[in-house]
Amino acid sequence: MTEKKRILTGITTTGTPHLGNYVGAIRPAIEASQNPEMDAFYFLADYHSLIKCHEPARVAASRMEVAATWLALGLDTDNATFYRQSDIPEIPELTWILTCVTAKGLLNRAHAYKAAVQINEEEKANDPDKGITMGLFSYPVLMAADILMFNASKVPVGRDQIQHIEMARDIGGRFNHIFGQTFTMPEAVVDDKAAVLSGIDGRKMSKSYDNTIPLFLPEKQLRKLIMKIKTNSLAPSEPKNPDECTLFEIYKAFASKEEAETIRLRYAEGIGWGDMKTLLFEHLNELLKEPRERYAELLADPAKTEKILQEGAEKARCTAAPFLAEIRKKTGLIPFI
Amino acid sequence: MTEKKRILTGITTTGTPHLGNYVGAIRPAIEASQNPEMDAFYFLADYHSLIKCHEPARVAASRMEVAATWLALGLDTDNATFYRQSDIPEIPELTWILTCVTAKGLLNRAHAYKAAVQINEEEKANDPDKGITMGLFSYPVLMAADILMFNASKVPVGRDQIQHIEMARDIGGRFNHIFGQTFTMPEAVVDDKAAVLSGIDGRKMSKSYDNTIPLFLPEKQLRKLIMKIKTNSLAPSEPKNPDECTLFEIYKAFASKEEAETIRLRYAEGIGWGDMKTLLFEHLNELLKEPRERYAELLADPAKTEKILQEGAEKARCTAAPFLAEIRKKTGLIPFI
Repeated sequence: MTEKKRILTGITTTGTPHLGNYVGAIRPAIEASQNPEMDAFYFLADYHSLIKCHEPARVAASRMEVAATWLALGLDTDNATFYRQSDIPEIPELTWILTCVTAKGLLNRAHAYKAAVQINEEEKANDPDKGITMGLFSYPVLMAADILMFNASKVPVGRDQIQHIEMARDIGGRFNHIFGQTFTMPEAVVDDKAAVLSGIDGRKMSKSYDNTIPLFLPEKQLRKLIMKIKTNSLAPSEPKNPDECTLFEIYKAFASKEEAETIRLRYAEGIGWGDMKTLLFEHLNELLKEPRERYAELLADPAKTEKILQEGAEKARCTAAPFLAEIRKKTGLIPFI
Repeated sequence: MTEKKRILTGITTTGTPHLGNYVGAIRPAIEASQNPEMDAFYFLADYHSLIKCHEPARVAASRMEVAATWLALGLDTDNATFYRQSDIPEIPELTWILTCVTAKGLLNRAHAYKAAVQINEEEKANDPDKGITMGLFSYPVLMAADILMFNASKVPVGRDQIQHIEMARDIGGRFNHIFGQTFTMPEAVVDDKAAVLSGIDGRKMSKSYDNTIPLFLPEKQLRKLIMKIKTNSLAPSEPKNPDECTLFEIYKAFASKEEAETIRLRYAEGIGWGDMKTLLFEHLNELLKEPRERYAELLADPAKTEKILQEGAEKARCTAAPFLAEIRKKTGLIPFI
């Protein structure tokens, strides 16, 4: 019998999930949750959300919305372990223990911190650390604890996150070196084939460009946003290139190969932009209808999501609590008897 | 009815408590524990011990020895709350929450960190952060959590620790500013009249000078160390100055005013160093005999100390757990129902 592969993914709980998040991260994760060969750990990274967001109402609402989104889209919580980071007190405790073996120099070299310092330097701030909190500086240690706590072997990430996994390896390796073999070395899994979607202005779909199409918009608003997607000015009946078109890119990400080929032909035949937008809207609307309803039901009955997350936390703590006891023992933090 | 004053003291758990520790910190703290007007919180700072000590056996043994020392010396655990920091998971959780509101610049200015950087610079290290861990850099945040978790209003400290209390005020104040009034602003209480003892070489008694007289040495070793205390070379019968003499300094710290005056006369009469050493040994030995026995009993029966500390942790968590729930609520980390 081969052991299940443990994968772990942290889910940002600020912002509203959009089509780009779905295609790039949520969909593959949900597929993995349904794969009985995978031992998937997914958590709402709400301790992380406190770094940037000091609006309690937004923190609370986002966590609920993100949890409901994943559940509505079919996350299999029987197979996967789905929990809120802040329900696992073992994580901040491990964070402190790891803090004691982490070189400060390692964090000096973190991309996010360096970028913040660079901005200060460009703006000729008196202090290169101006406006930088310890949260921003030290979150890679929290992230290491997130990963090492569950001995995850695979961590699916975007290219910009590879450094975090390297740091988790570095920190876990340091602990292993001092106190003996304890932590599995996690590996970053970068899926370069993961679809990246463009937003309504043609740039990469991203919260920071304010060009996203949220997943669970009401029908009318979904139609409205799709109608706004930027196209070129070719007239109806002129042949069009699907491979340079945001409409087709989004359609393809949500269609079978055959469906995509059919639409490709329509581009060659010169489908008008208005028709293509209507077609895209109807296709997406059809796919999103059911999850959208489930999403609304979940938001209307928060107790259901709360229960699922508490069960998830219990499951996660069944792993975390005995492992933390073992880790504490290695450092000398043991009961006297 | 006036509210009890809550004082809080963290106890270092590395090293063996010596006469200097007793006179400067342990004795006043134990007296406060016996004062019914004081609500005293005393904790073994074992999360802190991981910063510098990566020897599990030493960490474990020191915690036990320090706890037994305080109990043997008469700590009143009915009136005071006596616990191991590492038994309070609310503390590392609060540490993370505070981390998110702490300016990195604040920690850049911490004395201990700056001293470590200065050493690197003097040694012309390639990296000014060479050998510095995140534990050393960020422990003032843990310390702020230690204090703020229990809304301590008074924190007795040595001069070198005042900055830590100022940082706790700064961090707590920042949280209050963002999320509304939550934390009491702690005040440092510096007792300039607290006795400071010299060690056997005449310098300040300190672990780092290797000149200490541990509290619970076996009788023979206590005598031997006292015989080693450095004096001047005045012959017996020559009048001696008690105010420039380590022997008298130690005697005085453990004697009543009347006893001290009596010995002062003996100095004027020219008591010989050998006689004075014997006198000091007998005086100390008489005082330490009983606690030394209690100490040995406690070390022989670790279950007893374990039970006391677990009861203390329970008491501390009765304050910490509901307060942390309140703090979490202010940040948005609330259950969905």
